[in-house]
Order: sequence, then C-alpha cells, then structure tokens
Amino acid sequence: MVSAAPASAGPAGAAAKLRKTRLVGPHISETPITLGNLWQHIDKLNITLIIMVPMLGVWAAFYTPLRTPTLCWAILYYFWTGLGITAGYHRLWAHTSYSARLPLKIFLAAVGGGAVEGSIRWWSRDHRAHHRYTDTDKDPYSVRKGLMYSHLGWMILKQNPKRIGRTDISDLNEDPVVVWQHKNYLAVVIFMGLVFPSLVAGLGWGDWIGGFVYAGILRIFFVQQATFCVNSLAHWLGDQPFDDRNSPRDHIITALVTLGEGYHNFHHEFPSDYRNAIEWHQYDPTKWSIWVWKQLGLAYDLKQFRQNEIEKGRLQQQQKKLDRKRTTLDWGVPLEQLPVMEFEEYQEQARSGGRALVLVAGVVHDVSSFINDHPGGKAMINSGIGKDATAIFNGGVYNHSNAAHNLLSNFRVAVIRGGCEVEIWKQASKENKDVDAALD
Amino acid sequence: MVSAAPASAGPAGAAAKLRKTRLVGPHISETPITLGNLWQHIDKLNITLIIMVPMLGVWAAFYTPLRTPTLCWAILYYFWTGLGITAGYHRLWAHTSYSARLPLKIFLAAVGGGAVEGSIRWWSRDHRAHHRYTDTDKDPYSVRKGLMYSHLGWMILKQNPKRIGRTDISDLNEDPVVVWQHKNYLAVVIFMGLVFPSLVAGLGWGDWIGGFVYAGILRIFFVQQATFCVNSLAHWLGDQPFDDRNSPRDHIITALVTLGEGYHNFHHEFPSDYRNAIEWHQYDPTKWSIWVWKQLGLAYDLKQFRQNEIEKGRLQQQQKKLDRKRTTLDWGVPLEQLPVMEFEEYQEQARSGGRALVLVAGVVHDVSSFINDHPGGKAMINSGIGKDATAIFNGGVYNHSNAAHNLLSNFRVAVIRGGCEVEIWKQASKENKDVDAALD
Ligand code: HEM
Ligand code: HEM
Ligand SMILES: [Fe+2]
Ligand SMILES: [Fe+2]
Ligand SMILES: [Fe+2]
Ligand SMILES: [Fe+2]
Repeated sequence: MVSAAPASAGPAGAAAKLRKTRLVGPHISETPITLGNLWQHIDKLNITLIIMVPMLGVWAAFYTPLRTPTLCWAILYYFWTGLGITAGYHRLWAHTSYSARLPLKIFLAAVGGGAVEGSIRWWSRDHRAHHRYTDTDKDPYSVRKGLMYSHLGWMILKQNPKRIGRTDISDLNEDPVVVWQHKNYLAVVIFMGLVFPSLVAGLGWGDWIGGFVYAGILRIFFVQQATFCVNSLAHWLGDQPFDDRNSPRDHIITALVTLGEGYHNFHHEFPSDYRNAIEWHQYDPTKWSIWVWKQLGLAYDLKQFRQNEIEKGRLQQQQKKLDRKRTTLDWGVPLEQLPVMEFEEYQEQARSGGRALVLVAGVVHDVSSFINDHPGGKAMINSGIGKDATAIFNGGVYNHSNAAHNLLSNFRVAVIRGGCEVEIWKQASKENKDVDAALD
Repeated sequence: MVSAAPASAGPAGAAAKLRKTRLVGPHISETPITLGNLWQHIDKLNITLIIMVPMLGVWAAFYTPLRTPTLCWAILYYFWTGLGITAGYHRLWAHTSYSARLPLKIFLAAVGGGAVEGSIRWWSRDHRAHHRYTDTDKDPYSVRKGLMYSHLGWMILKQNPKRIGRTDISDLNEDPVVVWQHKNYLAVVIFMGLVFPSLVAGLGWGDWIGGFVYAGILRIFFVQQATFCVNSLAHWLGDQPFDDRNSPRDHIITALVTLGEGYHNFHHEFPSDYRNAIEWHQYDPTKWSIWVWKQLGLAYDLKQFRQNEIEKGRLQQQQKKLDRKRTTLDWGVPLEQLPVMEFEEYQEQARSGGRALVLVAGVVHDVSSFINDHPGGKAMINSGIGKDATAIFNGGVYNHSNAAHNLLSNFRVAVIRGGCEVEIWKQASKENKDVDAALD
C-alpha cells in the first residue's frame, strides 16, 4: 500500500527515513520543545528547502545583477508554479473540482513540482485531512496551534505521521500522472524548480546565473510563502460569511497573495466548487485560468454548487449571528411574567394618577419617564393615558415606528384580562348599559 | 391663532397673500400643469429667491474679483448658516432633541435666518408634518412625487396649504425667539442673508461688493441646495438599516453635503436623538457642534436613544431582510408532503438498486445524482446506502458541514415511520430475535 509511508516525497521525505532509525520511545513531536532538544525537533531537509536555500538566494542576489527579461520570466514563472499548486494540486487533485485532459495534467504536475511543496500525492493527502479534520489535532496544519505553526512550523518541526487524520486517496493512486510525479519527485523538483528556469533564461538571453538565482531560488521562496498563506492567513484574517464554527475566513488580502485562494470560508464550505471567489469582481485568477482552459478544451466538468445552496448557507450564518445578537439585547419583561389586570382596574389606576399608564395591544405601559421625551409632544402622549390607545398608537393619530414599538416593551407593567375598550363597549351596548357612565 | 396663515413667512410668504385674491374654484395645485398654466403654478417669490437671485449672483461674480479673505469668510458663513438650519431649525426646534440657552438660540435663529429657508416656525411645522406623514400626500416634500419635487419642486410650484398634514407646534408658539424671528422674518432675512455678510467683508477688509456677491448671494445658493438635499437625496440614495417601509436612507454622500444629516434612515426612526450619525467615524459636524456647545454650557439635555433600542431596530430590519430572502430560496420538499415508508421498505428498495437511497435523521434521500460529485468520494457515500446513516453523516465518519445538510434537503424522497436502525436493533434484541438475519 502506497500510503504506508505517509511523509515520503513531501519536503519531509528524507525526514521520514531518518525517523525509522529510532525504534523505541515516543515520537520526538510528543516531547516538549526545549533549548536542548530543539535541534532534534527540527526537520533538517525542510528547514533547508524553506529557509536556508532562500537565504542563500538573497545572498547570491547581491552578487547577481537582475536583468529585465529575467525579472519578467521570474514573475511569469512565479504565476505558473503558483497555478500548479492552486489550480493543480489544490483544485484539481485534492478536491477534484474539475477534470483536466492529459496535456494540462502534465503541465500542472510539472509546474506544481517546480513550486517545491512536495508531490501531488503527499500534498493532497494532507490537504484532504486538513478539510476533514479542520482545526482538530488530526489537521496537519491546524491554525489552533498558532499562526506561525500553520504557516511554516508544521513543516519545520518534525511531525508524528500517525497524528494526521487518514483520508481516502484511492482516486489519486489511480491517476498515472500523480503516481509518476510521486515516484520521480526528486527529479521533478530539481528540474522544474531550478534547471528549467535557468535553462529558459540561459538559452533565451544568456542569463544562466540570473535565471538560477531569481527565477529559480528566489521565485521558489516567494511562491512557497504565498501559497503557505492559504494555511495560515486564510484561517486567521477576515470574515466568515458561511460558517463560523471553524477557522476558515474570507479576505481580499489573502486572495491577492494566493492567486485567489482567499475566499477560504466559502472554500471549506463548498470544497468541490472549482471557484473560490463567487462574485465576478473578486480576485480569483486560478478560477479564471480554469475557465480559460475550459474554453480551450483542456478542462471540463467544472463543478459548481447551485447558487441556491450558497445563498442558503449565507442566510443561515446571518441568522445565527442575528440570533446570537438577539440574546444580548434587552427585550423588556416577558409578557408571561407580568401581573394580570382588569380593564376597569387599569382605568382606575390611570385616573388616580401616580403612574402614567397607557394601554396598547392588551399590555399596560407606565410611560411616566418618557412623557417629556415623547417626540410627538406631551399633549399627544397624555391623550392616551387611561384609554385603550392601541388604535391611536397604531395609526389612529400616528402610525408609530418600529422603534416606538420596541420602546414600549421597556415600559410594560401588566397585561389586561379579557377584552379591552372596544370589546367592553360592544358588550355594554349589547346589554344596553350606559357605557359613558361606566367608563368616563 | 398664528397657525391660521400656514404658508406665511416661508420663502412662500408673499405667495400666500396672492392666493387670498382667488376666492372660488379649486386651488391651482389641483389642476394639472400645462404649458398654458405653468406660469400660474409657479410660486413667483420662491423661484426668485431660489433660482433667479443665484443666477444674478453667478453673473455678478464674473465682474467681481474673488479675494481670499472673502472666500474664507463665505465658506465660514456657509457653515454657520448651514448649522443654523441643521443644529437650529432641525434638531433644536423641529425635533427638540436638545435644549439651548438664550444666547445660542439667538445665534441659531439669526444664522438660520441667513440661510433664507423660511422662519423657524414655518420650517418646523412643515418638517414635523414630513416626519408624521412621511411619503404620503400630507408630506410637504414627499419623495414619492419625484426627486426634483422633493428637492425644489415643492417650493417652486404652488402648494395647497390644506393638503399638508397638521402638527402640534404649541411648544414653538411659546418660544419667544421663534415668535420674534417669525414676526420679523423679512428683516432677519435681509440683514442676516445679505447685509451682515457684506458688512463683515466691507468693514473687515474693504470688500463690500465681494462680501455681498460671494458671502451673500452665492453662499445662500449653496447653503440652500445643500440643505435641500436632506429632503431629496436623503430619501433616495443609500441603505435602510433601521426600517425600509418608508423612503429615508443613510448615505455618506448625503452626510457630506448636509453637515451630517445624511444618516436619515436612523433619523426618521429616532427623530428626537440629537445625533444623526451614531458611529464615531461617521461625518456629523452638526452633532459635534452640539456636543461642543454642551461643553461650553450653551446646550443641555441632549437626548439620545439607548443603544439597546437602536440595536433592536437594526436587528429587526436585518431579520426582515433575511425572512424575505428565505422565501426566495428552495428548501426542498417540506417533510409533511413526503410519503411515509417503513424502515424495512427502505432497506428493500435500497438493496434492489435503481435509486441510491440514504437514510439520515429519519428522512430517506435519493443521492443517485450526487454520488459522482461527492467531495468525500464515491466509496464513502456508497457506504451509507441502505443504512441508517444519521450517525455516519453527523460525525461518525465525517461531521458534514451546514452546506451538506442543506444539500440533503434537495434529495428528500420519503420519511421513515417509527424508529430507525438503532431502534429496531434495540427492539429486536429485547425480543431476542436474530437481527442479523432480519436486517442483513
Ligand atoms: C397614545 C398616544 C400617543 C399619541 C397620540 C402619539 C403621537 C405621536 C405623534 C403624532 C408622533 C409624531 C411626532 C413627529 O414626528 O413630529 C409621535 C412620535 C413618536 N411617539 Fe408617540 N404618541 C403616543 C404614544 C406614544 C407612546 C406611549 C410612546 C412610547 C413608546 C410613543 C413613542 C413615540 C416615538 C418614539 C415617536 C418618534 C417617531 C417614531 O419613532 O415613530 N408614543 N407620537
Ligand atoms: C453517508 C455516508 C457518507 C459518508 C461516509 C461521507 C463522507 C464524507 C467525507 C469523509 C467527506 C470529507 C471529504 C474531504 O473534505 O476530503 C465528505 C464531504 C462531503 N460530503 Fe459526505 N459522506 C456521506 C454522505 C454524504 C451525503 C448523502 C451527502 C449529500 C448531501 C454528502 C455531502 C458532502 C459534502 C457536501 C461534502 C463536502 C464537505 C462538506 O461540505 O462538509 N455526503 N463526506
Ligand atoms: Fe483551509
Ligand atoms: Fe482546500
Ligand atoms: Fe426626511
Ligand atoms: Fe427630521
């Protein structure tokens, strides 16, 4: 079974072999980091590829003049290798969010290798575990362990391969391009990462060393740091329009840095959608590229969630936020906690003074504290005291705003038993009583 | 009774007098505008004050050099007279959203008069009607009659004073500053609108004519157009975070133009709040001025709605939008419209093939169309077919996202009667039956 050597062919490939020499005791990652054992914790191969070599590159750059064609080529190749990761490794292989014809697959496997981030197989397995176990201990680059951990730490510090969640990669094991790239990973990395960019610059305009330093080493550093941001920044900066149970977030900055992978809250909710940005005005060059490949017949079967499903998710998250907000606000004494009062009792109490009582919609309100602040004036509000002011309040005199209705709930003091003014008039007129005497 | 001459002392003061000469027949505003009667429809005094004089001002400006001190003074006086309207006429008198000591009142009545928009009493009466009858025919400047109507039309075309809603202005009739300004309105307008700005420029740096043209006429034009935007732009451009039943809207552009009166949706919902902008970063110089006057002891009793009430309003509006949105989305066949199925029937149908049936939470789903798109792979989803997959789906194998739960509802085909898998196992084990034979 190929997945028995889970860390091989990653940047950590060699580290896995080293590990086999230690046969007893807990994995080094289980022991706390101290100054004494720091060296043991560090993955030597990865720190070399991710930190040391770029530093050499910076040093070499001081002695290597940067020529314009080389700069252009380095930037172009940065985009190609970046797309190898985002459109290839990520959206095509890890998420099968679209299908690609063989030439496109080979191109993506090649330039993706040139980004020096491990083989497709290794990368996708970890990435699927990241989606399935997001933010848990089984997530290979859980942001809960710190922003730097999710950006670099998970590669620079040795990992216990057993800790990382298991995922189904049977589809990848059946893909000849993936299998070939995995088997020949070292050759692919050296050729596509360093040799090819130097070749282009050397054969093209004679700048062998510039090609090596700028389009090779330094470009690797930039593309690595940029795509690593998907694991760090995208779980740390921005909004959560679809789900806030986990850490993924949407932010334009992340999108700009990662060739469009910045709408990560959307992406974790709809991982098999070939888009990350769903609005036309959002920056997602990876999506644009896939779309262009489709027009060229190189890509097909682009998966897309129905807009209806996307809107449902957004709506539910907004509802969740509103419900949370609602519990933090004061909505007045709940009706069922109020004492019950007879309509005559209410009239009696309102007449006898003391409190300014106004009955609206079956609830008695003590508006004493508000009379002077009433935007409609003292006279208006006073006209409602001791009466069933429901109709007056709701348009008879003025159709009060929603805000006025809300305010009312703060002044609740009692609910009225049975009917209110109108009902009592009706009843009295049926019984032929003299209502004016009774009520006024 | 003072309110018997409702249009007097507005820019339309003289027009009201003209009207009295016509004793029979409908008011001119009731007859449709034609080319023939256009002249009769037009309010001659107002069109002179609002359109003709400014045009003369522009013409005069061609012959009048603009000196820097005059420009500065015109801008300063623009702000003073603008504040006279926003902080004085509007927030102090029309809405009594704070109280002012006599010197401040006199200042506001004076500079407010200099804006040439009618007396406090006339302006506030119309404005209260505007709030009480917003967007109805009783609203003096209803935006429902068109943007230009609410901006200028209502002043340039003659109005039937009987049409405009009645409001209580007894408090204004008791305010000596208001009464004095109303009685001496013509003198106030001429002095504060034209004489005073010329005096300052003339006595200050000898620029009598510049003061008259720039700080007088043209400044009047700008301050009029700016404050008129509260009636037009503020009911036309922007968001409605508090209530969308009526036309008021919040927009930064309106705020910039109107010395902070641009948060008009808030203002119509909380008219007696001395603020229009409730966030510190929003532009509301009128609010800032009132606050400064309070620090100087010139203003007191600044009214402010509790944050709780404001948040309640915002929340309810958001809820309303969500509810509206919810009805536009497809939420799958409602459970009560689904046929009922026995658990054994479900197993039977799932086994016999045809449809890929998965039971989750008591509901049977036909996922045939989704198997190939399943982000977790075909094998995973197939493992749930014919079983009670509730636990598998909800974390047993993978804790599916909210989006996955939503998707499920599209695939509903039946509900299960009584218990599902676990229940039937429990029951069978109680009865000591051989469940494996029965279920597998
Ligand atoms: C029962 C007799 C009442 C009458 C006749 C009455 C009348 C009015 C009128 C005419 C206005 C419009 C003022 C304007 O915009 O110029 C108004 C506004 C207002 N009234 Fe009342 N009112 C009554 C009771 C109350 C009560 C009990 C409350 C307490 C919640 C209240 C709260 C408000 C508020 C907050 C406004 C501001 C505009 C709005 O938000 O709708 N009123 N009222
Ligand atoms: C019943 C057996 C099922 C199993 C064992 C299963 C397993 C999984 C697993 C392991 C993943 C994670 C894939 C990854 O991120 O790499 C996943 C994702 C997903 N599954 Fe399933 N699944 C099942 C049924 C379903 C059904 C019936 C639906 C239809 C709504 C569904 C919809 C999804 C969706 C939308 C995702 C994407 C991630 C998410 O939104 O949660 N699954 N599934
Ligand atoms: Fe992620
Ligand atoms: Fe992903
Ligand atoms: Fe308004
Ligand atoms: Fe107002």
